[in-house]
Amino acid sequence: MNTPFRSYPGERPPDPPVAGRVRIVGAGPGDPELLTIKARRAIREAEVILHDRLVDPRTLALAHPDTALIDVGKRPGGPAWPQEAINRLIIEHALAGALVVRLKSGDPLIFGRADEEIAAIRAAGLEVEIIPGITAASAAAAEVGVSLTRRGRNSAVTFLSAQGADGPAEHNWDALAAADSVCAIYMGVRAAAFVQRRLLEHGAAPKTPVTVVENAARRKQKIVSATLATLSQQLEQAQIRGPAVILTGLAPALQRSATEDIEPAACAYETEAV
Amino acid sequence: MNTPFRSYPGERPPDPPVAGRVRIVGAGPGDPELLTIKARRAIREAEVILHDRLVDPRTLALAHPDTALIDVGKRPGGPAWPQEAINRLIIEHALAGALVVRLKSGDPLIFGRADEEIAAIRAAGLEVEIIPGITAASAAAAEVGVSLTRRGRNSAVTFLSAQGADGPAEHNWDALAAADSVCAIYMGVRAAAFVQRRLLEHGAAPKTPVTVVENAARRKQKIVSATLATLSQQLEQAQIRGPAVILTGLAPALQRSATEDIEPAACAYETEAV
Repeated sequence: MNTPFRSYPGERPPDPPVAGRVRIVGAGPGDPELLTIKARRAIREAEVILHDRLVDPRTLALAHPDTALIDVGKRPGGPAWPQEAINRLIIEHALAGALVVRLKSGDPLIFGRADEEIAAIRAAGLEVEIIPGITAASAAAAEVGVSLTRRGRNSAVTFLSAQGADGPAEHNWDALAAADSVCAIYMGVRAAAFVQRRLLEHGAAPKTPVTVVENAARRKQKIVSATLATLSQQLEQAQIRGPAVILTGLAPALQRSATEDIEPAACAYETEAV
Repeated sequence: MNTPFRSYPGERPPDPPVAGRVRIVGAGPGDPELLTIKARRAIREAEVILHDRLVDPRTLALAHPDTALIDVGKRPGGPAWPQEAINRLIIEHALAGALVVRLKSGDPLIFGRADEEIAAIRAAGLEVEIIPGITAASAAAAEVGVSLTRRGRNSAVTFLSAQGADGPAEHNWDALAAADSVCAIYMGVRAAAFVQRRLLEHGAAPKTPVTVVENAARRKQKIVSATLATLSQQLEQAQIRGPAVILTGLAPALQRSATEDIEPAACAYETEAV
């Protein structure tokens, strides 16, 4: 067991460790300041953390020095951890009495594939708690200063994954191509030409504004302001390769430069034993 | 100007006050532990806070005692503040040199009507920063332990408002009624019978699971597990009146009791001047 943390003003003292507890925690978009207070507490209290590749090193640095950090993320082109192997690790550590945190970037319940893990954890007779996180679409919209919804423009917004299990995913393109439709497209960079073609085929206006935010609230954030007609060309020109959210139907309101490196607030947490 | 706060381990020291700065901040669903670290810092640093009615009193208690707290929320049945009056107040305080926080429940860019405020603030020559928050759909899904998206089931989720400017809002019901469609419906309680009828008219299966989370991550949270056929009847029976998210296409995975009062972690922050 870890040495308990000192409790700070304004923070709940750590919960007493309970054997066999698992927390599935949203790490948010990257900047550790965009963690929730509850998520930061869970990271500090964890004895074992299984994390995705996209979780920021500054976020992992919040953990206690004795905490086991296990990277179960898939590297592009590299081998993926089979989901069953991740489930097994979570359960083994929890059954051994550790307080386990499964740390996923963004919100674990939006394109985070948490359901299988939740089911496996519960099937093993273990408790699971879910701590939400800021999803990439919220972070991207905040960076460009534009609402995902607006009265009189769109009273709905669709979050969709451009990638299915075997390549680009099909969607209800008629609905998505409608005037004033707003979508936040996750995992969209590789499928951008496909999405662009589908939306145009289904009647979306070529001049529909499209905003791409690469590395939202991370180091090396890049913003590309395009139209549906120019989307894949502009992504290519801007050399967008990292994780990005594509916002269709929205133009940036805050006039940042087209390519901007932001340096999010440093807030590495120095662990201090009592 | 406020006395500066002491800085705590793991937190960025307060920014030096800058005259004429506005931050539009997401207060999350209610539980102050679901604030981001950045949002909590903004609340602590604010000299004037203009907040919605739904912002939790425990969240407002994080502000410095000298901070002016202005409730610009609409009470049900009561008079609403005109948007222009809110814009004017934000701008007046910022031009007078105050660090102003506009505090909105959930995420300010999802059904938060932030665009008009952003435009007005920028038109007044002032800087605006947006700090995202946990939106109600994320909090509701976490409480019932089910993903908003799942590979092989739905690779898209739609967040929609059931209320338009003049009553229930129309949507692309064909798309929303499709098998395996998942929606998170905001402001849906009063319009539940309307949404139910529309989805059934457009071919949704009557046995489609529907989960309603009232007061997600707030005191007096209630969870109702219904089907599309029984939705409005069950909302009536459970006397759902407070803010609620309706998740269509999802059944709860965590087996909480049907009606449960949760007491979110107390984490009121005691302000301490240096």
